[in-house]
Amino acid sequence: MGDSRGIVLFAHGSRDARWREPVEAVAARVLALEPGLRVRCAYLEAATPDLATAVGELATAGVSKIDVLPIFLGVGKHLREDLPRLVADLQQVHPALRLNLRAAVGESPEVIDVLARLALKN
Amino acid sequence: MGDSRGIVLFAHGSRDARWREPVEAVAARVLALEPGLRVRCAYLEAATPDLATAVGELATAGVSKIDVLPIFLGVGKHLREDLPRLVADLQQVHPALRLNLRAAVGESPEVIDVLARLALKN
Repeated sequence: MGDSRGIVLFAHGSRDARWREPVEAVAARVLALEPGLRVRCAYLEAATPDLATAVGELATAGVSKIDVLPIFLGVGKHLREDLPRLVADLQQVHPALRLNLRAAVGESPEVIDVLARLALKN
Repeated sequence: MGDSRGIVLFAHGSRDARWREPVEAVAARVLALEPGLRVRCAYLEAATPDLATAVGELATAGVSKIDVLPIFLGVGKHLREDLPRLVADLQQVHPALRLNLRAAVGESPEVIDVLARLALKN
């Protein structure tokens, strides 16, 4: 197993396919910026794959380090407490993987800045 | 009434105060970029103010044009159908206001790009 990196874009999920479009658009943009990178979307509920499936697929593909990026602007207690536990459980299942749970995108100053600039447009 | 502009940052809402932090951070960043602009946060549910209250406050403050920016990444059918109706109803209540419902932030290529670049960090 090498030192190849994978990314999971982890979002809430919805039965509505259009809901997932921005998440899938981020995955497509990641691939446009870094072709060949292993990137997966995964969902907390109401959509597939779930996080375990996405992480399992990346592990099978030979990825050794996975960043999990929560594509959430507002993060409630549920996600703050449940997602770390979910990632810790997956770490037990895949002890050779390095699983890195990132801060939610809503905590990024760059994201806040681009949203503010978008608000000011027109 | 002049031609002053206001902005409402409209998000889902949560009883969890920390959930609202990114929305409030966007409002603070808007004010840092354009001091004195009239900007309000408003929420669909589980947090106050609601959209009608925020729009009413801006109208009382003499704003004549209000952009409503949905701070949603994924937009489900509920929001796609209910929010336009909500804005249309408010337009009836405030016929002198120009209410402009913007596309959700998750539909912005700049937002998708900054999320992808964030995913690639490290």
